[in-house]
Amino acid sequence: MKAKREALISLFQAMEKGEVDEDIIDLLLLINSIKGIYTTSSCSGRIGILEEPALGAKPLSRWLIKVHRPLKFEEAKEALKKAKSGIIFLKSQPPIFHVVAEDEEKAKLVHEVGLSSGFKYTTFKAISSRYLVEINGTEYLTVPLGKDGRVLVADEYLKFTIDIGNQMLERSKSRLPRLYKNFERLKEELGEDPLFKNLSTAKS
Amino acid sequence: MKAKREALISLFQAMEKGEVDEDIIDLLLLINSIKGIYTTSSCSGRIGILEEPALGAKPLSRWLIKVHRPLKFEEAKEALKKAKSGIIFLKSQPPIFHVVAEDEEKAKLVHEVGLSSGFKYTTFKAISSRYLVEINGTEYLTVPLGKDGRVLVADEYLKFTIDIGNQMLERSKSRLPRLYKNFERLKEELGEDPLFKNLSTAKS
Repeated sequence: MKAKREALISLFQAMEKGEVDEDIIDLLLLINSIKGIYTTSSCSGRIGILEEPALGAKPLSRWLIKVHRPLKFEEAKEALKKAKSGIIFLKSQPPIFHVVAEDEEKAKLVHEVGLSSGFKYTTFKAISSRYLVEINGTEYLTVPLGKDGRVLVADEYLKFTIDIGNQMLERSKSRLPRLYKNFERLKEELGEDPLFKNLSTAKS
Repeated sequence: MKAKREALISLFQAMEKGEVDEDIIDLLLLINSIKGIYTTSSCSGRIGILEEPALGAKPLSRWLIKVHRPLKFEEAKEALKKAKSGIIFLKSQPPIFHVVAEDEEKAKLVHEVGLSSGFKYTTFKAISSRYLVEINGTEYLTVPLGKDGRVLVADEYLKFTIDIGNQMLERSKSRLPRLYKNFERLKEELGEDPLFKNLSTAKS
């Protein structure tokens, strides 16, 4: 799989630059070591505050703070001082993995791994001859906090809603060990990819 | 398709009881009239306030108010008086359609219809020999408002956040006409289902 070779090289480079979320590195390496599948953009889950210039203008939004662990009230307050223009949102998002599978059978197996690991929003798309499986949870929080630099909620509410966002993030991340185990089983079934072995030995 | 026959009968019965969202009735009838596909649970999009007994206990949550059109501030305030126990959420959700396709080729076509109509979160699952396509938008709002009967936000914020929820609902619903047109084109391609014709004539 030529595309897998390129994706792996990309992943190893990102890891070297420290651009890959630490708590999913082992999982990403495991998935990529399996024959016939590989990962593209994935995230270990995050909580943060961003500004959206206008509703729907997502690509233009800018993060004021973004973390992959529980968000602290004080750092949120600090970050909110930087708010200038647009709608301010607190967002909490579960881990998300994008796995490319070389055929439909493998896509269905990966899809099953996601669902049985508690990632209830796991689905797949067909893209030309390949399949893209998205392993996704349901624990999303999207809370408007204010507009054009002005925060419209009191501290008490901010604490309350950040706490809920943190709990959701924690709950969705708590499924990662189960996901890891299920991918280990899948590896026994599909086998190890020699390409992965070669590339990872070559880089070290 | 035996399952389609049952789904159609179910749909017509629900329509007679007024249980189907009015603004998607034509769309549902159109989709079901196409050979090889049919709809299951679908919703025209909604905004409302609910109570969740504990985070993650979604099936146990109860709606305090739920509407398929813009939510008014006054009715939201009224509904909040009924809050008793659990976390209170304001939720805004885009239209969502579940379409069963009898084979992969049709699933891909329906998937394409969803995406090209602006429903960016359209995906599909394989379920035994059938395919379930979910046509879904991205405009979700999930805002905690309080806990155990106590509202933690001021009126000004409530108005602000309801307004955002309404705008998101409006934007996602504004794509329904395009979805309709794209399903019309798909009908020209796949043809009319005689089963649908028979059942709909029989009931009237």
